[in-house]
Amino acid sequence: MKVYGYFRSSASYRLRIALNLKGLTAEQSFIHLRKREQTAPDYLAVNPMGLVPSLVEGDRTLTQSLAIIEYLEETHPDPALLPRDPLDRAWVRSIAQAIACDIHPINNLRVLNHLRDQLGLDEGARNAWYAHWVAEGFRGVEAMLSASPRPGVFCFGETPTLADVCLVPQVMNAERLNCPLDDYPTIRRVAAAARALPAFQAAEPDRQPDAE
Amino acid sequence: MKVYGYFRSSASYRLRIALNLKGLTAEQSFIHLRKREQTAPDYLAVNPMGLVPSLVEGDRTLTQSLAIIEYLEETHPDPALLPRDPLDRAWVRSIAQAIACDIHPINNLRVLNHLRDQLGLDEGARNAWYAHWVAEGFRGVEAMLSASPRPGVFCFGETPTLADVCLVPQVMNAERLNCPLDDYPTIRRVAAAARALPAFQAAEPDRQPDAE
Repeated sequence: MKVYGYFRSSASYRLRIALNLKGLTAEQSFIHLRKREQTAPDYLAVNPMGLVPSLVEGDRTLTQSLAIIEYLEETHPDPALLPRDPLDRAWVRSIAQAIACDIHPINNLRVLNHLRDQLGLDEGARNAWYAHWVAEGFRGVEAMLSASPRPGVFCFGETPTLADVCLVPQVMNAERLNCPLDDYPTIRRVAAAARALPAFQAAEPDRQPDAE
Repeated sequence: MKVYGYFRSSASYRLRIALNLKGLTAEQSFIHLRKREQTAPDYLAVNPMGLVPSLVEGDRTLTQSLAIIEYLEETHPDPALLPRDPLDRAWVRSIAQAIACDIHPINNLRVLNHLRDQLGLDEGARNAWYAHWVAEGFRGVEAMLSASPRPGVFCFGETPTLADVCLVPQVMNAERLNCPLDDYPTIRRVAAAARALPAFQAAEPDRQPDAE
């Protein structure tokens, strides 16, 4: 397997955590998003969306972090990142998607660049935009986590799931942008527990070969 | 089963298509997004993210359209909305997520309202924002669909999948906002084929009881 990623991309970070949790290794290739390497024809041939991560498996290329992680879950089911019961699986996926659909895409680098370059927003206004969507999303995620169908150390029970895989990168990004997290005690507690695990630690942006 | 939705919500529309394809019926409850009913305490108790759709199954409530549809796929597998092979499943999911993560959330009603109310964008500027992210996303989706691992009538082969379920609402919304679609012949062909199916037709926004 070969993975294309970027140290600071939340979506790449999710995939790194999932690979580590499953004990999988992949050759790494780095796409520097701030240098816009994702828009180079060579990379668009790999991932036409111009986003990271991508995973190459034989002659097939997979894109979208959650689709790739579901693929890993189906092909390397142990340890499981989704529970067995369909209702529980749906709940774990809903936390993952609350982050991956309803917080992260509105705040990712290309949107922030567009706000700067097309709408002329200065850094303060861009940070306010970021903080707004984090607050909007985390308020909901906090309420969902505090009513987890299986309360425990992590989002769902005593082992990390796809929900934790998505939560930790979003929390770390929110911290990096100085978003206040006081109102989200369950998010902070769960993220701290997950970040203490070696699989999460080894996936941290600053520990990647392309970190700056 | 009970579903909370809104006629014009793309995410609700996806769920309506999936229920129809699987021959499932659900009691319907309508949350009027333009009247901000999604922020009422009663509805936040159902879905703390303040979004539609939500699906109530017994004493459990499921949120996030893709998580709900995966739940339906697991509990009502026939007809299948995902292929069998893990690589193919990942490809179908990646099309669905390219739309559900990388186009729709940046353009949904709450973001457009924020651009109007907080950043003062007029209708023309909001429509330009919408068209930009549709073009950005559809360029990638078109390239992916034109290299489908199983080319056919639909996104993947000869039966509709989760990819078509997500594609059609996004195409209809793009049309409603007058986004040019000339550059995306595969998207237009596939969406037209899917929209000819009764399951897709019955799910169209204008045919819903809460349509205006």
